[in-house]
Amino acid sequence: MVITWQQRAQEKRDSINALIPKEYRIDRVPSAEEQRDVTGKYIHQFLTEREIEITESSADEIAKHTVSGSWSAFEVTKAFCHRAALAHQLANCLHEIFFEAAIEDAKKLDDYFAEHKKPIGPLHGLPVSLKDQFHVKGVETTMGYVGWIDTFQGEKNTGKEKVFESEMVRELRNLGAVLYCKTSVPHTLMSGETRNNIIGYTWNPKNRNLSAGGSSGGEGALIGLRGSPVGFGTDIGGSIRIPAAFNGLYGIRPSTGRLPYEGMANSMDGQNSILSVVGPLATSVPSLRLVITALLSQEPWLHDPMVIEMPWRYEQEKEIHKLVGSVGDASRAGKLIFGVLKHDGLVAPTPPVRRAIDRVVEELKRLGHEVIEWKPPSHRKILEAGLKTWVYDGGEDVHSAFKLSGEPLIPQIALYSDKPFEQAKGSDIAAVNVTIRQIRKEYMEYWNSTTGVTSIGRPVDAIIAPLAPFPAARPEKYNYYGYSMFVNLLDYTSVVVPVTVVDKEVDQADVGYEPLDEIDKAVYESYDPEIYDGAHVSVQLVGRKLQEEKMLAIAEYVDSILKK
Amino acid sequence: MVITWQQRAQEKRDSINALIPKEYRIDRVPSAEEQRDVTGKYIHQFLTEREIEITESSADEIAKHTVSGSWSAFEVTKAFCHRAALAHQLANCLHEIFFEAAIEDAKKLDDYFAEHKKPIGPLHGLPVSLKDQFHVKGVETTMGYVGWIDTFQGEKNTGKEKVFESEMVRELRNLGAVLYCKTSVPHTLMSGETRNNIIGYTWNPKNRNLSAGGSSGGEGALIGLRGSPVGFGTDIGGSIRIPAAFNGLYGIRPSTGRLPYEGMANSMDGQNSILSVVGPLATSVPSLRLVITALLSQEPWLHDPMVIEMPWRYEQEKEIHKLVGSVGDASRAGKLIFGVLKHDGLVAPTPPVRRAIDRVVEELKRLGHEVIEWKPPSHRKILEAGLKTWVYDGGEDVHSAFKLSGEPLIPQIALYSDKPFEQAKGSDIAAVNVTIRQIRKEYMEYWNSTTGVTSIGRPVDAIIAPLAPFPAARPEKYNYYGYSMFVNLLDYTSVVVPVTVVDKEVDQADVGYEPLDEIDKAVYESYDPEIYDGAHVSVQLVGRKLQEEKMLAIAEYVDSILKK
Repeated sequence: MVITWQQRAQEKRDSINALIPKEYRIDRVPSAEEQRDVTGKYIHQFLTEREIEITESSADEIAKHTVSGSWSAFEVTKAFCHRAALAHQLANCLHEIFFEAAIEDAKKLDDYFAEHKKPIGPLHGLPVSLKDQFHVKGVETTMGYVGWIDTFQGEKNTGKEKVFESEMVRELRNLGAVLYCKTSVPHTLMSGETRNNIIGYTWNPKNRNLSAGGSSGGEGALIGLRGSPVGFGTDIGGSIRIPAAFNGLYGIRPSTGRLPYEGMANSMDGQNSILSVVGPLATSVPSLRLVITALLSQEPWLHDPMVIEMPWRYEQEKEIHKLVGSVGDASRAGKLIFGVLKHDGLVAPTPPVRRAIDRVVEELKRLGHEVIEWKPPSHRKILEAGLKTWVYDGGEDVHSAFKLSGEPLIPQIALYSDKPFEQAKGSDIAAVNVTIRQIRKEYMEYWNSTTGVTSIGRPVDAIIAPLAPFPAARPEKYNYYGYSMFVNLLDYTSVVVPVTVVDKEVDQADVGYEPLDEIDKAVYESYDPEIYDGAHVSVQLVGRKLQEEKMLAIAEYVDSILKK
Repeated sequence: MVITWQQRAQEKRDSINALIPKEYRIDRVPSAEEQRDVTGKYIHQFLTEREIEITESSADEIAKHTVSGSWSAFEVTKAFCHRAALAHQLANCLHEIFFEAAIEDAKKLDDYFAEHKKPIGPLHGLPVSLKDQFHVKGVETTMGYVGWIDTFQGEKNTGKEKVFESEMVRELRNLGAVLYCKTSVPHTLMSGETRNNIIGYTWNPKNRNLSAGGSSGGEGALIGLRGSPVGFGTDIGGSIRIPAAFNGLYGIRPSTGRLPYEGMANSMDGQNSILSVVGPLATSVPSLRLVITALLSQEPWLHDPMVIEMPWRYEQEKEIHKLVGSVGDASRAGKLIFGVLKHDGLVAPTPPVRRAIDRVVEELKRLGHEVIEWKPPSHRKILEAGLKTWVYDGGEDVHSAFKLSGEPLIPQIALYSDKPFEQAKGSDIAAVNVTIRQIRKEYMEYWNSTTGVTSIGRPVDAIIAPLAPFPAARPEKYNYYGYSMFVNLLDYTSVVVPVTVVDKEVDQADVGYEPLDEIDKAVYESYDPEIYDGAHVSVQLVGRKLQEEKMLAIAEYVDSILKK
């Protein structure tokens, strides 16, 4: 008897759900119409006060407690397992559940602490969720492909199945982190929505009319529901920042070579014109810093040949603190300088995104910082070159994964047609690489040229930009990736910061707007205040290459003034 | 009337030679049989004592004089112009001569010093030679292609001809360096010998039976003859280290992303699996350090998108000084640890190279350092993957350059046949990139594993390895690149240090050697003590990725003990 892909998918889906302990089950999940927002008060009904206290603490706060021994790893882990189980039922965000292993690990950490009177490392007892590209022992990695079930990255009998662990997993364990679940992705990873033929669609818990984002969409929904304090996603066109933005979270796309990708599953592995990078999403900027500094303390450059030997540069953070500390100073040397990208020349941001951008600009100006208009070289050229890098192999890689099971592409994957197409040649790829280098050089010199525009002869510190033209995508309406993608082509550091939520009274639809082209029109028409009401609205702060320290310091500052 | 490629080449050759001032001309250059070695005493006959004093000072010594004003830039520049002109007549090493512009620049530097009582920068008045991939205003870049004469990288009427300058040229000028000539390369750059249809063959001045090396062969011969104190070459398979080794010089292959390649001509531009890197060759280690630290002071990461923001890390040098300073200490913690690669499993080094390696090992051991045998993962796999990256485009790039003039390939370019062949596809290239990453990971973990082998639980600091199986190649006998190439694939930092010269009495040919294969046989048979007598013999010291500070510190130390 032949097993169909539908059956295989159903089996896998059932096996995931079967791992949710009975006492964590929700009898009936209301529809989006009944209950648009399942975060906060809604999910609280299933939790104890103590569980809420723990799970609504940020990763850095939690680590303070678990590292000092005031909270046990066991209690913290259990609380997050519970809340993650609820999150999955509400938003469909998990691919692998391994709560039992996590509880065992947590107990061992508590035993260690009891015996040695000290933590194993700076992440002692901190639950960390992982996108389903990480290999973790005991569970599999499907990356949303039905054909990858019961295999190692599509191959059978490699000896690595459920045994092999990714380099960062090894480091996280060394640091004391507790791993307990892996989160959903769109198959191929090449979508800003998260859907696949195994678990279906991952919904935005804050507004279930909308997508949780992608491709690290499971992370977005899970952390958005506080089912995880911090998790890791990957980003080749926005896939960390999109779910961060859509779920009101903080997320960083580090530059290539900062964090270890070694030993993770990936799409189009070996395409090296624009590399996917790995980075954290969390509920605060200090949480992002905590996990990054912890990982760098493990010297990942000794275990991942793609990582650069660059320990955390505390002095670069301090420089920002100094500038911020002296803002308003008569010498006027003590301010930050921002460029604001209000429109990339291709697609207009929708009203709530414009409002978020304006609010950040106003607050910064009010405090004495400088904001100039960002008028960069053509973003159209950037996007054209970027798109080419994703189809070098004519879809060969993703189609070989589909072929394993016979499953069809989800409609969200617009990049590939229903069968492989012509591959690029060596000289084509070389030409794209030269174009990318030229674009980076041109953009870099534009950035340098801002010394001549700002009032104090220092170039712009960061760009304030939309992360997407909309607060979050509506299903099958993610029509434009330009605002996130330009950062990947330039290999810049970018941090997403939540700003506000959609208010249908304030963020009314534009009237009489004349779109520039079909894509602009599609984005414009996708905005509906009724549908979007209550959704998170975020911006990204973009810095130059390898400016993780500086950009987190700036993001933390911007966040602090927005919260005032 | 059609001009043949031969005529165009002849014209260009004549125009170069015409730029040698009459008073610098040598009446009759003896044959190699008459005068094997044209360095030292031989070339001295054409120079004044003062010129010898200046030109035989190392770059760091010269800079001390010119930066303090005790030597004028004019006098120094003139001396090097003279000696470079002699070098070209003796070894055929220049592609572009611009002594007049250099003298003008030197005068301006002297004027600046007179007016401001200080130098323009740390390279004030220091002559620096450049491989003919750098674009310098006033002259062209042919890169050895007849078809590039009167063009910008093969294109006509770009507006960049003789005007555009490479990024590093801009930085060198900012630092006060004096540019005065560009040096010869093999066309395509893909050879360890230097020959092209414009200027012919660049000979090894120390032993004119042999090649000066390649592809930065002009640099090797010129600096070998002290016609330049320091110059820049590029290295994708050994092209800095080969001419350094063959000419008794110091040369460093930095890792990718350390020094700016922006705006230079190149072969197969856009092939980005193994990148060519730029780096200096000089007559001392401090000279290498001087120019690198000077360039980094220019923050090249703000002007070259491929450069990593990594200022010179003085503390990493200090760590080596500390280890070396405490060698012999009872605690035994104060020693360096080396791995010695005596044979890569594929091709046996010839007797003088073996002797050089042994000498370095003995000296280090004698002083209390530790040397273990280096037994790395398969070098064959490394070379196979590396070779693929050079032919992604099936030779399209180099053949399009040949087609411009109709000139034929020199026989030294074994990589390409007489016409383009099949290109690699996107998925082929991705597969090579994955293989390269896996090889790097495997090699890295081998390196890490040496903690378990060394006596003090610290891993190896550097590998002592041959740079080539022979002291220098005989014409058309460069049969094996494995010893230099593995470093490029691994993206390691490597410094060449001269050790000795061939002594035909000591370095007798092996008797009864049974070669492993045809290549091993060809290398074995190419060694002839009579022919090689007097040639320089060098080794390379290989460090991990981005270890320029550490490796220069180690190279300087090793050099100092060899000189004792």
